[in-house]
Amino acid sequence: MSFLKGIAASSGIAMAKAYRLVEPDLSFEKKAIEDTAWEVERFQTALSTSKAELDAIREKANVELGADKAAIFEAHLLVLSDPELISPIEDKIKTEKVNAEHALKEVADMFISLFEQMDNDYMKERAADIRDVTKRVLSHLLGIQLVNPSMISEETIIVAEDLTPSDTAQLNRQFVKGFTTNIGGRTSHSAIMARSMEIPAVVGTKTATVDIQHGDFIIVDGLKGEVHVNPTLEIIARYEEEQICYEEQKAEWAKLVNEKTVSADGHHVELAANIGTPNDLEGVINNGGEGIGLYRTEFLYMGRNELPSEEEQFESYKAVLEGMNGKPVVVRTLDIGGDKELPYLNLPKEMNPFLGFRAIRLCLEEQDLFRTQLRALLRASSYGNLKIMFPMIANLDEFRAAKAILEEEKQKLVSEGVNISDNIELGIMVEIPSTAIMADQFAKEVDFFSIGTNDLIQYTMAADRMNERVSYLYQPYSPAILRLVKMVIDAAHKEGKWAGMCGEMAGDETAIPLLLGLGLDEFSMSATSILKARSQILRLSKMEMEELAEKALQMSTTDEVIEAVKALSEKVVSM
Amino acid sequence: MSFLKGIAASSGIAMAKAYRLVEPDLSFEKKAIEDTAWEVERFQTALSTSKAELDAIREKANVELGADKAAIFEAHLLVLSDPELISPIEDKIKTEKVNAEHALKEVADMFISLFEQMDNDYMKERAADIRDVTKRVLSHLLGIQLVNPSMISEETIIVAEDLTPSDTAQLNRQFVKGFTTNIGGRTSHSAIMARSMEIPAVVGTKTATVDIQHGDFIIVDGLKGEVHVNPTLEIIARYEEEQICYEEQKAEWAKLVNEKTVSADGHHVELAANIGTPNDLEGVINNGGEGIGLYRTEFLYMGRNELPSEEEQFESYKAVLEGMNGKPVVVRTLDIGGDKELPYLNLPKEMNPFLGFRAIRLCLEEQDLFRTQLRALLRASSYGNLKIMFPMIANLDEFRAAKAILEEEKQKLVSEGVNISDNIELGIMVEIPSTAIMADQFAKEVDFFSIGTNDLIQYTMAADRMNERVSYLYQPYSPAILRLVKMVIDAAHKEGKWAGMCGEMAGDETAIPLLLGLGLDEFSMSATSILKARSQILRLSKMEMEELAEKALQMSTTDEVIEAVKALSEKVVSM
Repeated sequence: MSFLKGIAASSGIAMAKAYRLVEPDLSFEKKAIEDTAWEVERFQTALSTSKAELDAIREKANVELGADKAAIFEAHLLVLSDPELISPIEDKIKTEKVNAEHALKEVADMFISLFEQMDNDYMKERAADIRDVTKRVLSHLLGIQLVNPSMISEETIIVAEDLTPSDTAQLNRQFVKGFTTNIGGRTSHSAIMARSMEIPAVVGTKTATVDIQHGDFIIVDGLKGEVHVNPTLEIIARYEEEQICYEEQKAEWAKLVNEKTVSADGHHVELAANIGTPNDLEGVINNGGEGIGLYRTEFLYMGRNELPSEEEQFESYKAVLEGMNGKPVVVRTLDIGGDKELPYLNLPKEMNPFLGFRAIRLCLEEQDLFRTQLRALLRASSYGNLKIMFPMIANLDEFRAAKAILEEEKQKLVSEGVNISDNIELGIMVEIPSTAIMADQFAKEVDFFSIGTNDLIQYTMAADRMNERVSYLYQPYSPAILRLVKMVIDAAHKEGKWAGMCGEMAGDETAIPLLLGLGLDEFSMSATSILKARSQILRLSKMEMEELAEKALQMSTTDEVIEAVKALSEKVVSM
Repeated sequence: MSFLKGIAASSGIAMAKAYRLVEPDLSFEKKAIEDTAWEVERFQTALSTSKAELDAIREKANVELGADKAAIFEAHLLVLSDPELISPIEDKIKTEKVNAEHALKEVADMFISLFEQMDNDYMKERAADIRDVTKRVLSHLLGIQLVNPSMISEETIIVAEDLTPSDTAQLNRQFVKGFTTNIGGRTSHSAIMARSMEIPAVVGTKTATVDIQHGDFIIVDGLKGEVHVNPTLEIIARYEEEQICYEEQKAEWAKLVNEKTVSADGHHVELAANIGTPNDLEGVINNGGEGIGLYRTEFLYMGRNELPSEEEQFESYKAVLEGMNGKPVVVRTLDIGGDKELPYLNLPKEMNPFLGFRAIRLCLEEQDLFRTQLRALLRASSYGNLKIMFPMIANLDEFRAAKAILEEEKQKLVSEGVNISDNIELGIMVEIPSTAIMADQFAKEVDFFSIGTNDLIQYTMAADRMNERVSYLYQPYSPAILRLVKMVIDAAHKEGKWAGMCGEMAGDETAIPLLLGLGLDEFSMSATSILKARSQILRLSKMEMEELAEKALQMSTTDEVIEAVKALSEKVVSM
């Protein structure tokens, strides 16, 4: 038995056999071939088998994960049908009389190295596609089975270096009970996937693929961030109990699905959900979301080769607004750049992309793109309760400029006779320190604030949240962050506006008492966190949380704040 | 005649002929060679001529710019003596019977591409060295003169895409009257060089090398950031007048060299200088610096292949402390990382280096390196008025950890019988938003603050100051920045501590009235800015500036603040 510590990325407890998702050996020898016609046919057979396989995976991804996730397999299929790649391989087999494996590898490597040298992200992604596809065709030529998680037929826990979208798309949700990975954090792809699949996950263990063998019995504790490998019977028994407790607790939470979120002393707050596509609506409704606090529209723009049309956007926005049936839907305008790239926009590489040309900065410059989105939003507004918010606003000039563009498009649409809601609230993300500091001035001109803690924390602490060497500085409970949050909430209330939060922090058990105490009006989180948060808030007294927050604001370190919250939760639990 | 607008990077007005520092055409044909022995000799001659030339440049750089600037030519000389590079070239000439140009280029390119592919900054720098050196040897083989600014013998203004350290090291200061470049900003190398050489410069003109021909008569207006190409007689006459005014003004300022800096209503502030090496001391004293507000120790670590020893550091710190003769010297401990790399530390490449593992973050992890510097500082402390400050402090935990290490080294040295000043103030740079926001808590534990605006602004606005696409957000006069500055100053004063500033902003004409009004105690700037700043402060009333600052804090945009300062300066000037 052994034990691994990682980052708790998705709640719950899973116990099952380990399934190692690792790369098989695809090495081969170069061979001279006499019957080249037969060799070409062998290659074509491998090609069509690969296509059929990819087709199946794409379908599965489309149904289970949505069109945006399936797009990558579309790209792979395109590569397999590209004569510029396929013909040279067949020519090589014929003229050089070599085996298909060798011809495939040589031609593919040539393209890969050509594309990778280009200073263009779009071409670099094509290189990655060719690499993936080559691996698949090669496996069929060699008769070696690629690890094929879609074929899993018993309960398993996936153990991997990391999980890519292509990996997770193939997982059979019926049998996959949990994940554990070597790398990643709470905001990495595998963590977000686990939460959306509602299965426990522990990421960032560093050595899971080293310490865990295929078939080992493991426990993934997504509550504490622990992984037990071949645990003793005693540990298993303890976890079986905990699992039962957790399931009971979840059943309790489920009863709250139609409840309002009211503190023990009668203060109402709103619990909303963060979504990426209309597909996420079902989860929001099942988990009792009182609205959408953040609709990340960039997924509409990703995993494709051109900008989405106004019509396509309109349909998505309308679907979400209608699906929420009059409940508030806060749509964030395009937040691209930083760690989210759009290859087809051909943006220049930046030295510090998190401090670069992204989100509203890009939209104010590339106005066609921005205006198309705003028109689609305005047209959809009559189908529900739309609120629009701009990301990465750093000063009032930017907000005024963005608002002026919105007004222009509104006037145009009105003069075209389009029906537009006359009740669209207009707000901003507060994710840049300057904006939090100037919240009193902003509050006079915006309708609401939504605090984006993922970015706000990294800028306030000057620490890249994706960089493991400085991740110790990513401290949501730091008194500095709490002070900024307070500035924003107080500024909003002074002008009769509302303040929400849509970063990871809003659904965090330790942060919720502090945020309630600071007076936050709306908490927007992963849909799967809503019921737990509601249950927590029902037990808290707003007045007591105000005292807690007041003290926390005067503390000097994050540890003191965490201690204070812990002491209080123990008190609440023991009551 | 034409006109270019750029960034005013160094004050003053220069008028002279343009000298274009541009790359010559070094193309050649591959040739078959019969007499290879003669060809090898021709190659060796070009080698030794190149060595002699580099030797001369290195000497010149050493005398005029200091050993740290000369180190790059040392590296070039090493490349020229490396048999692993030279032998293969000679072999190629002999065995392949090709001309020396071709053999040199082929071998050099092979090494360059090899080194550049390595994921190691040290090797990448070697690739750059080989490229530079190859160009020099090639120019001698081809009999083409490289642009050789050290040979300039009449008054000129340098026009270039950008100026590298290697370019500026070769400039004859007697004849170079100014710079203008296509790229760069106030904090780029060429701007800093121009200020240290006290010659006018306009950088970031985008098209100087396109719009200006060799020999054009040009005017560089380093006050307004303008370049006039072949101006009319009227413009020349106007600038001759302005030049006289500026010289008269400088003569006026020079009278203030031994004055205290006291506002019109009797409030004293301290004007200190930012330095990089002991060589900068002369400029500080000539310009009436009342202390060193920032000694950037990283220059000791740069342009070399290993860490500086404790002894070497001790000598530098002692030289500065003795040179300042009892006046305060604030030494910043190593601030490496971000845009300042140390190839020999082999730090991993980061996605967002400005938000990465740098400065105190690195020192707390690489403690040997940190302890060596602290020991050198403590040992030097008895030779003057030393204050130590830590860079990039993000929270109190970091400050406490760094302080504890300093205390440990102090105890060790005391027990070794070393003489240490018992009056060393210990402070921090405030350059991360969280630290400004928490200044009240820090003020209880530090002896002083020094606000580093270059970084503080970029983090507060989440805009990379080196990225031209977002440089519009680098706004020193933004009310958000002023509010943070106020928090820091007020917190210091409440605990009886002092607050200084050592970013570009401290020497800025528009910022000085605001900073005086906010109560800043110490202004640390380029030595050449001190006398002008003193003259400005002598004419300002602190009480009036307090009113100005109070108003600015309540404004909503940077433009409003600039307007208010302008209106007031006009009033002051017209009095």
